[in-house]
Amino acid sequence: MNVADRGLPVAVPSTALFTDQYEFTMLQAALRAGTAERRCAFEVFARRLPEGRRYGVVAGTGRVLDAVENFRFDDQVLQYLRERRIVDAPTLDWLSRYRFGGDITGYPEGEVYFPGSPVMRVEGSFAECVLLETVILSILNHDSAVAAAASRMAVAAAGRPLMEMGARRTHELSAVAASRAAYLGGFASTSDLAAGFRYDIPTVGTSAHSFTLLHDSERDAFTAQVDSLGSGTTLLVDTYDVAEAVRAAVETAGPGLGAVRIDSGDLLLLAHRVRQQLDELGATGTRIVVTSDLDEYAIASLAAAPVDAYGVGTQLVTGSGHPTCSMVYKLVARAASAERDAPLLPVAKKSMGGKTSAGGAKWAARRPDEDGVAMAEVVGTGTVPEELREHQLHVPLVRRGETVAREPLDTARERHKKALAGLPMSAMQLSRGEPVLPTEYV
Amino acid sequence: MNVADRGLPVAVPSTALFTDQYEFTMLQAALRAGTAERRCAFEVFARRLPEGRRYGVVAGTGRVLDAVENFRFDDQVLQYLRERRIVDAPTLDWLSRYRFGGDITGYPEGEVYFPGSPVMRVEGSFAECVLLETVILSILNHDSAVAAAASRMAVAAAGRPLMEMGARRTHELSAVAASRAAYLGGFASTSDLAAGFRYDIPTVGTSAHSFTLLHDSERDAFTAQVDSLGSGTTLLVDTYDVAEAVRAAVETAGPGLGAVRIDSGDLLLLAHRVRQQLDELGATGTRIVVTSDLDEYAIASLAAAPVDAYGVGTQLVTGSGHPTCSMVYKLVARAASAERDAPLLPVAKKSMGGKTSAGGAKWAARRPDEDGVAMAEVVGTGTVPEELREHQLHVPLVRRGETVAREPLDTARERHKKALAGLPMSAMQLSRGEPVLPTEYV
Repeated sequence: MNVADRGLPVAVPSTALFTDQYEFTMLQAALRAGTAERRCAFEVFARRLPEGRRYGVVAGTGRVLDAVENFRFDDQVLQYLRERRIVDAPTLDWLSRYRFGGDITGYPEGEVYFPGSPVMRVEGSFAECVLLETVILSILNHDSAVAAAASRMAVAAAGRPLMEMGARRTHELSAVAASRAAYLGGFASTSDLAAGFRYDIPTVGTSAHSFTLLHDSERDAFTAQVDSLGSGTTLLVDTYDVAEAVRAAVETAGPGLGAVRIDSGDLLLLAHRVRQQLDELGATGTRIVVTSDLDEYAIASLAAAPVDAYGVGTQLVTGSGHPTCSMVYKLVARAASAERDAPLLPVAKKSMGGKTSAGGAKWAARRPDEDGVAMAEVVGTGTVPEELREHQLHVPLVRRGETVAREPLDTARERHKKALAGLPMSAMQLSRGEPVLPTEYV
Repeated sequence: MNVADRGLPVAVPSTALFTDQYEFTMLQAALRAGTAERRCAFEVFARRLPEGRRYGVVAGTGRVLDAVENFRFDDQVLQYLRERRIVDAPTLDWLSRYRFGGDITGYPEGEVYFPGSPVMRVEGSFAECVLLETVILSILNHDSAVAAAASRMAVAAAGRPLMEMGARRTHELSAVAASRAAYLGGFASTSDLAAGFRYDIPTVGTSAHSFTLLHDSERDAFTAQVDSLGSGTTLLVDTYDVAEAVRAAVETAGPGLGAVRIDSGDLLLLAHRVRQQLDELGATGTRIVVTSDLDEYAIASLAAAPVDAYGVGTQLVTGSGHPTCSMVYKLVARAASAERDAPLLPVAKKSMGGKTSAGGAKWAARRPDEDGVAMAEVVGTGTVPEELREHQLHVPLVRRGETVAREPLDTARERHKKALAGLPMSAMQLSRGEPVLPTEYV
């Protein structure tokens, strides 16, 4: 079953043009030179985490699998490539039959990663692998950035529910992927209906200031909302005077009012005042939701406040200061010739001035201490040491072109919780610091 | 003609779910309360520019017009809203007939903006306008952020061509919109074929390090590339030793080699060395392209270097430190009743603690000095002063639901150049500072 084909509200007839032009020109040159069929291994990794971050979160894997399945060249796409003379006729012919037939191996979605972790490996001919560079990186770099921010916010919220509300602050389709990554990272729900539709994430939302302003009085607005949505709804209480609004809210909905939302001002102070007022009015079960420019630090600073749920927008969808990861897709090994059994040779860029990396296809394992707490991310080539065999991180994702690791989003979400729980306690610190695990190369 | 329907590689059957749930619940409550048909004016504006920025750039308007045209509820979408009980039956019935029938007025795309500039106004019934909040903000906040970064980079490049190469650093569809915004802001081309396909932006790209590593030697790789793409191609010279690569490049392609690309190391130093070496080899017409982690400051620092073109990725698509604008969509006026001729009353949030704004539908004009250089952004309600009439910024975009301002992307690109040229010289400073025009409220 091809999930991406059902990916409304946006159908993706093909992901084949989410590609940088040089992938096509390299393909053409390699086809002509007779090197296109050399077996290759490309690896996705980040040389570093965003500054100060303790761990990264692998997110987007499920979307990568959809994108690879949908990487096809229909007539319209081929016509574009032909008319713009991006590639020649033999290359167009080759593309018309394209279907990825290689293997993809990687960290399972929701797992954490560190500098140098080989989070994904793509193996097959140079021709079939080189074309996937951009779309794989787009997805992993975006989704992992959002998931990392979400994970830190979930740590800061310490069990209180987080609502994702950032659609308006990012591209309309990034928003859908961001909701997915946020849910994976520990958020409970989203305001974005496209994300609810596409990924079955619980959706939330009741009213904005405009609804209050539309009516002749705040009380009229509250009455209209409660009439329509019931007393369990969330009333927004900061359009005019908060204390008056809270009084009107409880009078309108009764002490069974579901929640009040505060979207501006000093949230710490207001939460305490509103809680006290609600309790005095007998609305002891009415929850307090806060939603104003929150990030993980603001959430943590409200830990002692009587807040029941957080809505997070801008800082979530922009990765809380790090809107992209720096994952790259590098050729690490290739066959000596195009013959089927030619041995793979490790390769790597070697110039002065940085951006070098280690050649060879890598395994990865997380070495635990005697209590089972992770001590190091171990990355190597060749044989996996005996004591690390059962701690390996890679799982098969695609075999001979067939996806073998489709899973529900909730599985990745649970995996992330478990992965976090296996890290040293210092992973939970919000303050800037070094990656919580060192990466050891064997 | 509906451009969005031709928007492959991604067809958008409907934009109706790029919407926060609260817009639907407000609609339902207002329908029930009899207030849904009150005439309203919503305005889009930013309370401030990103810190240190001198001006903002309006981008995404064309995409907003597409999104509004495609804001329809098909059976699949209605079924989702019904099954999840997001809205009730009368609201579903209303939605099934939805088509925006109001007016949209705004700054034309490519124009600059300042704090408080009313960049877009949406007028119609509350019901038809409230639903558009999220999708309009998603598009304008994303595209304007990228365009602002692009504009500053174009200023820094001072006429040298800029290539957009950031697809791998952002969501795969953000990337397409980012290429569009970059082109609008002054970029010359993109590596993203989906952007070339969708918006007819010139595309570029030749090869990556993986192509060199695929081959048995750098010289083999260069030969393969030149055989396929001709001597006018761009050879990547920093996989091993730059000086050796430049020698091999010119020997392979001849002195007519199109360009060499440097993607790592000290670009300033390398550009000078490579230029000298190329000239000594007789390749005086061979251009030098640099592409490593550039932003507007790095570009400016290379002004004196013999660089012919810049490729920019991460910093472009992430808005060079500001990946989103802070535009909001606020109800500024609404009718006293649902009757057709009821007068519009200004409304605004009034609570303590910020996020307040001025009520009333606003006009905007840019006051020039006697030399025609802009002096102030003037925003007001009521009658436009005589001397500002011909300097007004708003244009009609949609009238009674019909788009009246469809235009080619190149028109917006030219408009941006002209708008920048009309600002004081200090707009071109890259250093952090205040908005280059004060906003005056009348």
